Amino acid sequence: MIDYDPHQWGHHFFDLKGSMVREIVGRLLVVTLWATGVVAFHHHVQPIGIPNIMHGLVGVALGLLLVFRTNSSYDRFWEGRKLWGGIVNETRNLARASSVFLRERDPALYRTLVQWTVVFPYAAASGLRGDKDLGPVTAQLPPEEVRQAGTAQHVALAVSQRMSEALSEGRRRGHYNEYTQMALDQNVQQLIDYLGGCERIHKTPMPFAYMVHLRRALVIYCGSLPFALVESFGWGAVVATFFLSYVFFGIEEIGVEIEDPFGTDENDLPLDRICGVIQANLLALLPSETARPD
Amino acid sequence: MIDYDPHQWGHHFFDLKGSMVREIVGRLLVVTLWATGVVAFHHHVQPIGIPNIMHGLVGVALGLLLVFRTNSSYDRFWEGRKLWGGIVNETRNLARASSVFLRERDPALYRTLVQWTVVFPYAAASGLRGDKDLGPVTAQLPPEEVRQAGTAQHVALAVSQRMSEALSEGRRRGHYNEYTQMALDQNVQQLIDYLGGCERIHKTPMPFAYMVHLRRALVIYCGSLPFALVESFGWGAVVATFFLSYVFFGIEEIGVEIEDPFGTDENDLPLDRICGVIQANLLALLPSETARPD
Amino acid sequence: MIDYDPHQWGHHFFDLKGSMVREIVGRLLVVTLWATGVVAFHHHVQPIGIPNIMHGLVGVALGLLLVFRTNSSYDRFWEGRKLWGGIVNETRNLARASSVFLRERDPALYRTLVQWTVVFPYAAASGLRGDKDLGPVTAQLPPEEVRQAGTAQHVALAVSQRMSEALSEGRRRGHYNEYTQMALDQNVQQLIDYLGGCERIHKTPMPFAYMVHLRRALVIYCGSLPFALVESFGWGAVVATFFLSYVFFGIEEIGVEIEDPFGTDENDLPLDRICGVIQANLLALLPSETARPD
Amino acid sequence: MIDYDPHQWGHHFFDLKGSMVREIVGRLLVVTLWATGVVAFHHHVQPIGIPNIMHGLVGVALGLLLVFRTNSSYDRFWEGRKLWGGIVNETRNLARASSVFLRERDPALYRTLVQWTVVFPYAAASGLRGDKDLGPVTAQLPPEEVRQAGTAQHVALAVSQRMSEALSEGRRRGHYNEYTQMALDQNVQQLIDYLGGCERIHKTPMPFAYMVHLRRALVIYCGSLPFALVESFGWGAVVATFFLSYVFFGIEEIGVEIEDPFGTDENDLPLDRICGVIQANLLALLPSETARPD
Amino acid sequence: MIDYDPHQWGHHFFDLKGSMVREIVGRLLVVTLWATGVVAFHHHVQPIGIPNIMHGLVGVALGLLLVFRTNSSYDRFWEGRKLWGGIVNETRNLARASSVFLRERDPALYRTLVQWTVVFPYAAASGLRGDKDLGPVTAQLPPEEVRQAGTAQHVALAVSQRMSEALSEGRRRGHYNEYTQMALDQNVQQLIDYLGGCERIHKTPMPFAYMVHLRRALVIYCGSLPFALVESFGWGAVVATFFLSYVFFGIEEIGVEIEDPFGTDENDLPLDRICGVIQANLLALLPSETARPD
Repeated sequence: MIDYDPHQWGHHFFDLKGSMVREIVGRLLVVTLWATGVVAFHHHVQPIGIPNIMHGLVGVALGLLLVFRTNSSYDRFWEGRKLWGGIVNETRNLARASSVFLRERDPALYRTLVQWTVVFPYAAASGLRGDKDLGPVTAQLPPEEVRQAGTAQHVALAVSQRMSEALSEGRRRGHYNEYTQMALDQNVQQLIDYLGGCERIHKTPMPFAYMVHLRRALVIYCGSLPFALVESFGWGAVVATFFLSYVFFGIEEIGVEIEDPFGTDENDLPLDRICGVIQANLLALLPSETARPD
Repeated sequence: MIDYDPHQWGHHFFDLKGSMVREIVGRLLVVTLWATGVVAFHHHVQPIGIPNIMHGLVGVALGLLLVFRTNSSYDRFWEGRKLWGGIVNETRNLARASSVFLRERDPALYRTLVQWTVVFPYAAASGLRGDKDLGPVTAQLPPEEVRQAGTAQHVALAVSQRMSEALSEGRRRGHYNEYTQMALDQNVQQLIDYLGGCERIHKTPMPFAYMVHLRRALVIYCGSLPFALVESFGWGAVVATFFLSYVFFGIEEIGVEIEDPFGTDENDLPLDRICGVIQANLLALLPSETARPD
Repeated sequence: MIDYDPHQWGHHFFDLKGSMVREIVGRLLVVTLWATGVVAFHHHVQPIGIPNIMHGLVGVALGLLLVFRTNSSYDRFWEGRKLWGGIVNETRNLARASSVFLRERDPALYRTLVQWTVVFPYAAASGLRGDKDLGPVTAQLPPEEVRQAGTAQHVALAVSQRMSEALSEGRRRGHYNEYTQMALDQNVQQLIDYLGGCERIHKTPMPFAYMVHLRRALVIYCGSLPFALVESFGWGAVVATFFLSYVFFGIEEIGVEIEDPFGTDENDLPLDRICGVIQANLLALLPSETARPD
Repeated sequence: MIDYDPHQWGHHFFDLKGSMVREIVGRLLVVTLWATGVVAFHHHVQPIGIPNIMHGLVGVALGLLLVFRTNSSYDRFWEGRKLWGGIVNETRNLARASSVFLRERDPALYRTLVQWTVVFPYAAASGLRGDKDLGPVTAQLPPEEVRQAGTAQHVALAVSQRMSEALSEGRRRGHYNEYTQMALDQNVQQLIDYLGGCERIHKTPMPFAYMVHLRRALVIYCGSLPFALVESFGWGAVVATFFLSYVFFGIEEIGVEIEDPFGTDENDLPLDRICGVIQANLLALLPSETARPD
Repeated sequence: MIDYDPHQWGHHFFDLKGSMVREIVGRLLVVTLWATGVVAFHHHVQPIGIPNIMHGLVGVALGLLLVFRTNSSYDRFWEGRKLWGGIVNETRNLARASSVFLRERDPALYRTLVQWTVVFPYAAASGLRGDKDLGPVTAQLPPEEVRQAGTAQHVALAVSQRMSEALSEGRRRGHYNEYTQMALDQNVQQLIDYLGGCERIHKTPMPFAYMVHLRRALVIYCGSLPFALVESFGWGAVVATFFLSYVFFGIEEIGVEIEDPFGTDENDLPLDRICGVIQANLLALLPSETARPD
């Protein structure tokens, strides 16, 4: 993710990085060349201009469809952010709520529980990126369990299993009763829910029909623009087509960039940083002798 | 569902499959023939052109109604996806949370519980498609119970009954107390809620009045377009009417395609694949000797 | 509710029933007569045409207000459907979750509980329609209790009271403990919540100011349309005014039709059918000798 | 709140009450006088007409901002209604769920609990209106407690305290265990949540920047309208400006009227009636000798 | 936050404070100077006017994108307000629900719990503002614990830890059982969730691509406005460009002002006042001898 201060207007105005210029430059070039050809044909071969009524009539519906699509993508971006915010909250809650039962009375078990909890977001993030990674805090965990979890069919699910087992061990050792175990396990359940939500966003793009119809309508619209503009703009129609296409293709591309925000692009969520925050918050709750793993 | 990479612009641009061309081609043909007739009449019999003011005035409201309808359908599509994401989550949670009580101590009961849990999404999906099917993982379950469930008035409800009974059996055998039973049963309850949500979407189309008024308005709009375009476009009015109708009918058709996403069309949700993912995740949690059913 | 297949374009295109033609035909007639008068006056007495700029300028805001209102009504329709979906879910959940405790051990009490649960949606639906009715499944319930519930100040609330008492009786007879009782009672609580949601929708129309301002703006807009169209359309202005008014009044009427979806109109929810589905699902869970009440 | 039947078009069409005419008549007069001056100046002193392009260009953004603001206010109105619907539900649920434990065994305590529960909505409503009132059902409650609650720093919070104490007393007297107490107390907790939601809506208007920018843009737009209309409309520009301003200012005023729906205006929620419904529902649940307080 | 009465139109109409004039005046000056240069060039050097079709065509999509962005920011503002409303509710609920167990029987522990609860919102608010502060109510708390919490890695998390420990101490002293402890701790959990929600909003601006594309499109639009207006408006094009830019840049700036509402600007939420309300509500619940800390 690119950090920026929205109050500063000028700072990133000419950035290439993250501003989708590289993504849409190809389409823009094609449209501009096409517009040049149309205008040249109109001036040198035979007038082929058309009235601009058609573009006015279809503009409202197309603009709405375009901006709604971008907004649906933003909703997915924001839902993804909420889900990761939920992962932050529930890891904190699990570590905090269990600490009153375990921190003093069974620091070793508490450390195990907290460390598996720190591992969970790393496993979740790498799973969303098609990878299997447990992050930096695995040195003090049982190597065999770490190996098993790291090679499981679903890594984050295996990690959550370890967390549930640590909670179950706490009950077996008499630190709390079955009710408290289940109440603490609710936090693990919510972690699974949030991860499932991320997988849902990651695996389900916009419906195919929506995407393909919008793109075809956009291409028809932009491709016929030079015909509609050539009579009133002359050679300026090339520039005008370029600008209009830049705005329209850019809006569509925003939707593409942010609809699956779990990758490592400039417009994706800073999952690594969030995992780091969770790690810092949780390890700070451990009794001091076991605090920092380095 | 059609898998596609939204970052690739060109790949599916000319696809017929899933892009609704086959669905709307009939309407487009009618409108285009009508437009040809109108233009021919205008040129050869008597001028019948009208100003295009009317289409401009009604365009905003009609475009809004059209795109809102498509968006409402998308919300249903996305809600359906969320509900199935919830089914993924709760089946995982049930298998995970019960494993600490049952997996070691009563593997046979745990296997029964997990396998009925794997059956649930298959029963739910086939029920939404008007069918009664329990999926591939029924070989190790009691044949009589399988037969009863598969012929019940509501198959998925009968399967959930079996899950509740397995949970109840666990308490009767002393693996956990009544509180834990009810806490685990919450997951079954949520599965019923999610399935009920799917049935709600499946059985309730857009209100009849909304659908029929939108279609009539669309037909009036597109049918009167050639009159409004013929004076400024001449024979080009046929092409312009075709393009505008393509965009408008296409937007309306998106709404139809995705408002009930539980079928087997190209734009429906990949329920079979989701059921397969649940099966793989859950069977991987079983103790190794009982893992793969093949 | 009218059942229709949204994939079939032509089937209901000319339906009067449910398509709001009867509701708006009066308004349309007035506007059309008015338009005829205006055009006649313009042609035979004195030109009274005005430019159409004003309608263009106000069209966006008015169209937005109109479609937003229709959409808010659709949200209410859909929320109402969700609430009834919730009633389906929670009646199922109550019957399913209690069955593991009661079905075998105390079939009479289980039957009583399930039958009161079947009564609840009938009582809720008739209450929303200003009636007091308990539906068809009351023959096996204690007549005195049925009579009391059927004449209570709030019938569905009294029925829910009976359900709570059946759950309480189960605890008193030792079938489960107080915790399970409260967990099962949660389902009754949710039924009350859903019914309360329906009553909220039923009793609260759109804010008066919103409704009245929208209608006045619509009347001004449509009433001044013939003046704006007469110069460019001539006598065609009558037809154009008719079409535009049909679209606008129709959109407004959709909002009216679906904002309170608990009645018995063509565009209301099929509450009777939903009650029947609940009845069929729940009675199928009863032990066989008590299954069908006929 | 004004009760009206949305199916009746004509009934309230000319109402002054609740239709915001009195609120916006001042602004309309100023704009109309200004328009008269502009047109007079244009005709008698010197032409000052401008093209209407500017208004067309800014109209979409301004119309959107305007209608979105009105819609945000409607969302607040509807959220306020939902919160009060929640208060109805939870008071019902508290009285219903506690009745199985208290109604027969300890009618005096049950009556105390129910009566404090009836007091809560009255205290909440009067608190939202800047008042301290406990409603009509306090005669049978301990006068000292009533006095203390009625003069507390936060009246409704003090009432909820009494409800929690009644629930606690029930446990101390052995009618239920600690778990049931906490489960019943959840309803009190939700009442506090809903009241907090109402206070949030009441105390937080639209962001200042949003409100002030929208109003300035509206004034610029309407104030420059006569210049843009005078050339094509002549003296009709005064009427046209009046109509457009009426529509725009009216839409803005809807937003103001309904954004804080807890007052006693015509467009506010009928809190007194809702409190009365709660009172009737709850007192009907009391054993008969204590039922009606009059 | 600026307090204002939305029913009063005139009161703040000319305010500079909070109305974003200072924020956008620079951009407006640049655009106006540019417009002056363009018009001067057009009149004195060579005609450079273009038709205004382009601006009409792109206006819908741009206006939608602009207003949707502002609306998304408003949603964040309102979500932030809801989260702080939730903090108000849960602090109240914790103090209220625990009072029946602790207030009479262990006033010292109750006072400790309530005072840490009062500290939480202060710690949360200052944390959101990049500060570490515990507010005014720390005099009666153990100084060592106050010092540790005030210097912790995450202050509010450390404070919540103290609250959980006070609740745990209550169980250890036998005032309630483990179930009640966990039920009360739910309120602490929700406080953590709400704070996490605020941190999410604070740390995640609109996606970079959305922001930068919108600003570029706005600059192209406003920068090319004078060319499109100069032919019909003459020197008036400078004024028209100024007005249109004022409206557009202002709408964009609203979005910037309210998307992170936890600062101390005029359009931010009144966090200090909310903390004060919580403090007043909670301290009023303490037994009288310990009530006011001054």
